[in-house]
Amino acid sequence: MGSTVKVYGMPMSTATARVLTALEEKEASYELVLVNLKTGEHKQPDHLARNPFGQVPAFEDGSLMLFESRAVARYVANKYDSGTDLLRSGDAEEAALVDVWLDVEANHFNPPTSAISLQYIIVPIFFGGVPDEKVVEENAVKLEKVLDVYEERLSKSKYLAGDSFSLADLSHLPYTYNLMKTPKASLITSRPHVNAWWEAISSRPSFQKVAAGMTLGG
Amino acid sequence: MGSTVKVYGMPMSTATARVLTALEEKEASYELVLVNLKTGEHKQPDHLARNPFGQVPAFEDGSLMLFESRAVARYVANKYDSGTDLLRSGDAEEAALVDVWLDVEANHFNPPTSAISLQYIIVPIFFGGVPDEKVVEENAVKLEKVLDVYEERLSKSKYLAGDSFSLADLSHLPYTYNLMKTPKASLITSRPHVNAWWEAISSRPSFQKVAAGMTLGG
Repeated sequence: MGSTVKVYGMPMSTATARVLTALEEKEASYELVLVNLKTGEHKQPDHLARNPFGQVPAFEDGSLMLFESRAVARYVANKYDSGTDLLRSGDAEEAALVDVWLDVEANHFNPPTSAISLQYIIVPIFFGGVPDEKVVEENAVKLEKVLDVYEERLSKSKYLAGDSFSLADLSHLPYTYNLMKTPKASLITSRPHVNAWWEAISSRPSFQKVAAGMTLGG
Repeated sequence: MGSTVKVYGMPMSTATARVLTALEEKEASYELVLVNLKTGEHKQPDHLARNPFGQVPAFEDGSLMLFESRAVARYVANKYDSGTDLLRSGDAEEAALVDVWLDVEANHFNPPTSAISLQYIIVPIFFGGVPDEKVVEENAVKLEKVLDVYEERLSKSKYLAGDSFSLADLSHLPYTYNLMKTPKASLITSRPHVNAWWEAISSRPSFQKVAAGMTLGG
């Protein structure tokens, strides 16, 4: 039995939410230590010592300090035997497909989705600006192409790596949740298999709990 | 004993080179099947069936088809017992640091490095253009900040995840090799620990063999 792990972050941060959702899926106990992004606490020496890139979350397990939310989520998935089998490591082929779709999320899905989310959510509320519609449309075109691949994939299996929910699905939750609050939610709802997948993964108790904290207040 | 694995790609492609280097480190036998990027073969139906995003490489192991070079390299590292222990999975902490620095490569190092490489190598040779110096300088500023973090890290351990060469180091090889051919090589050579690390990893026989094929002719 180790000490309780600590997550240094903020519930509204998508990367923090990724790690918290993994911890909830693994039924792990953890402590969330608030790092206030609004006051720039993530760029102060205390947090730079945890994550030299000055981002949230950082993750502490005894003497081990980790960062990069996808790497942390993988560590969490490996560390705990309890809860959901997120890496599917008992089956080398399914485990490989988890890794493929984790990288698809990071390299194809995340860039346009985060760009749209930035324009509709962060720019107006944090910077008092208006969304740049040109940026939104450019990224919507990119995301359409990506989601066409997802629609085809999800017509063949319920989840991205096969018939079981995995870390690959989980990793999509926070930014898709934000996307669904924007006028571009239709990119998801207009694709039947993608929409059914979104409804299945977003209704999981783990994410329902984490999403309740994903407000701009926190 | 399975059948020989196949890599569908092109030796000059950095993502293909990442997978080939992993195979060389694992002393695996493999077949490289050429997908000609210059004629757009990667966007044709045969290749889209292998990788729906129309990129190289794709990787075939019997009935299993994978894509995304970092996921494929991880699969290769897991599949073969021979050769270098690239994932350090015998030590959970070191394995976690391999994952952290793999994500740092993908999310922090790769974007500015590939942008600089595009301007100096791809734009002139493939498109007959001249490098956009504004794009180069913007990305050089970003890469400087990233490499300052690497310099600090590599002052404390010989390799990114600890005292052993790992997949995290390997994953940096192809794009750093291209960067070293540009006027921005000084970003590496001006940082003593980063430069020593680069000399150590790039001199490995695995990468020497792969780099020999990383010419614009192939």
